[in-house]
Order: sequence, then C-alpha cells, then structure tokens
Amino acid sequence: MQHSVTLYHYPLSPFCRKLRMVLAEKKIEIETIEEQFWKNRPEFLMINPSGKVPLLKMNGKLFSDSQAICEYLEAIFPDPPLLPEDPEQLYEVRRLVFWFDGKFNSEVTSRLLDERMFKLIQKRGVPDSANLRFALGKLPDHIDYLHRLLNERRWLAGDQITLADFAASAHLSCVDYLDDIDWSRSDLVKPWYSALKSRPAFRSLLLDYIPGFQPKPIYTDLDF
Amino acid sequence: MQHSVTLYHYPLSPFCRKLRMVLAEKKIEIETIEEQFWKNRPEFLMINPSGKVPLLKMNGKLFSDSQAICEYLEAIFPDPPLLPEDPEQLYEVRRLVFWFDGKFNSEVTSRLLDERMFKLIQKRGVPDSANLRFALGKLPDHIDYLHRLLNERRWLAGDQITLADFAASAHLSCVDYLDDIDWSRSDLVKPWYSALKSRPAFRSLLLDYIPGFQPKPIYTDLDF
Repeated sequence: MQHSVTLYHYPLSPFCRKLRMVLAEKKIEIETIEEQFWKNRPEFLMINPSGKVPLLKMNGKLFSDSQAICEYLEAIFPDPPLLPEDPEQLYEVRRLVFWFDGKFNSEVTSRLLDERMFKLIQKRGVPDSANLRFALGKLPDHIDYLHRLLNERRWLAGDQITLADFAASAHLSCVDYLDDIDWSRSDLVKPWYSALKSRPAFRSLLLDYIPGFQPKPIYTDLDF
Repeated sequence: MQHSVTLYHYPLSPFCRKLRMVLAEKKIEIETIEEQFWKNRPEFLMINPSGKVPLLKMNGKLFSDSQAICEYLEAIFPDPPLLPEDPEQLYEVRRLVFWFDGKFNSEVTSRLLDERMFKLIQKRGVPDSANLRFALGKLPDHIDYLHRLLNERRWLAGDQITLADFAASAHLSCVDYLDDIDWSRSDLVKPWYSALKSRPAFRSLLLDYIPGFQPKPIYTDLDF
C-alpha cells in the first residue's frame, strides 16, 4: 500500500527530529512542511488544537504528539522494530524516551533553544544568562548519565537500537547545533552519537539550516 | 502471586494521582510513602536518578516515570484493560494522556500548584500574578476542549474508560483541590468528572490533605 504522508515540523524541534528518524528508519517517505508553530497560524490550529509540532497527516488522517505518533507507527509499520516486545525492556525504552522528552527537554533543550534562538527569531529580547547558566549546568549531569548507561549497554536501553536512542540523539543534535556540547567529556557518549549520526535516517537532520544560525562545520561531520 | 508494591509519591502530583488510580483500578495493593521530591533527599536520588515522583518499587525492582509505569502495569496486569488494543484507538488514548501530562500540565497544573502551594511550602516568595493569570486564562480553553470531546464520546477517548480519563481527571483533581475550576462552564465535563469521582479508585485521592491547604468541603462531594 502506498501511503501519503505529510509532516508539519520545525527543523530544530527535538520532538520532530525523533519522529523524522523513526519515519526514516521505517523507510516511510514523507513530504515535509515547515511550521513556525509560535505564530499560531489559524489554519494550523484548526487542524491541530494542541498547536504543537510535529503534526503528521497520513492517508488523510491527522496525528499529533510525537510519542503517540511513534508508538502508532510502530504498531502499523513494525519493521524494523524500534520498541522491544518484552514488557520490562519496553518499560526501560519508554522511561528513557520520557527522560529526554521530559526532564532533559525542560532542563536543557527547551531553555537553550529558547534563549539562543527563539528569543532572537521571535524578537523577545536578549538571552537570560541565568536561564542559560542553569541549562548549561545541568547538561554535564545528563552526559554523565548517558555515560553510565553506555558503560553497561551497547545502546541506551539495551543490546538493540530503540526509540530511546532516537529520542536522546534528537535532543543532543539540537544542543549540538547550538554548539553547547563538550564531546570530550565522555569516551562512550561520543562514539554512540557518532554511530547514530552515520545512519541514513540522521542525514536529513544534519542538513537542516535555520537562517541566521549557522552551525559549526563539524556539526555535520561523523568525526567530530 | 503476591506482589510487594511501594509507591513513593506526593499527594498533589497529577502524575502520581494518575498512577494511583491505575493501581487501584487494577486492584494492586500498595504501601505509600510521601516523598517531598523538591528536597532532593540523597537516599531518594540514589534509587531514582530522575528525582521525580512517582517512583514504584515492585518485587524489589524500581520503576520511574508515570507513563512508562502505567504502560508496564497494563502489560503485566491486563485486567481490567485501561488501554485499547486497536492501534488507532490506542493512539488517541496516548495523545490525550500527553495532552494533559504535557500541555495541560505546563499551561495550567504545574503553574497553579507552584504559585498557590509550592512557593509557600518551599518559602519561595509570593505568587506571581502574571503566571496565575496565564494559567487561569488557559484553563477555560481546556474545559471547552473536554466539552467538545465529551460531546462526541462517552469517555474521553471513546466508548470505554481509559488511561486518558485517569490522566485528565488527575490534573483536574489537583486544580479542583485549589478551587480553581468553574464547574458550571460545561454540562458535560461536570457529570464526566462526577462519574470518575464516584469510582473506588478515586477515593484515596479525595482523602489527601496538604497541611495548610484545606480544600473546600465540596471538593470531596460527588454532587458539586
């Protein structure tokens, strides 16, 4: 069956990036539309009351919320599997997805994106240095947490690559776009991230470009 | 099999309330420990790196993140089912859970709890009236959204009661504890919430009491 899939997204949204990786891993071809969600376009709010990205349109039906969508895609496109079947392993994957989409996002990603990028784009004044300091102070703890996990496991949640790896690397890739990651901090996190970066599913993320915010050249390199 | 289950929770955490309802619906007996998570007790952080509540200890194993736990409990205690099997219906349940645990929490619950309660408990100064106004300004839109859903469905996600109803009512119950809900706004939301309130699983929530924050007497009434 041919699927007609359109993704409304914003390039540096970690939630959109997670979903884009899942779509690419499952080889679902998509058309993308960039949605500047903060503008609250009436036409967008009409089809998406949450107002958030990503929004996926598939065969005429609309789906919102990145995690609800990823779980749905796993059910209808099970190949390759990105969620384990064993309930305890599945718990661990979801725990880590929510660690990044919840804790990491509220402590790090959303603050850095807001202070360094959205405030400028949306003309909302200058970065709040206390907020930046808070986020940059939390980031090393999260890198260390990843290090501890990768010290025991090949991928974040176990022996297989899962949605947890895509969620985590989606956030890290946004922070890396802003050049805020000290990759020398862990000799385990860097090769793990490099392995993700080298996957075809990651390629389109590395080509994203927000006008006025040029990432450092090494952002796209596999050897960084 | 007898299960030994301990829940570390905070009474007015909507995430803990969602999980407590799920545990009660599935008739899993628990011992509860109140955790004042903002104190970052070293013994708690040691067993729970996220530092958040709820934390569930079951047969010696530790589980964190309310949604990852609820999904895990559904897999190992499938009776009664709180998640549908059909992928599209399951998507809808999860979308609504994340609507409340994500959007509603960040726009309403977390702000009202913080301004009206945690600031006082944690001696962090006076409520920020702009933040209160923001939350109270968003709340009616969410009640209207619930109204629209309940205009088409018996329960939030469809004909059956699901985790979406427990997630939504967990948030509303916290806001209602603070007496911030205008129940006259919708003639559909009030009977839906009353039906949830009358379930045995809701009973322990209504008995919660935060010293210094007495809910209005009608908070516990089924006719409110």
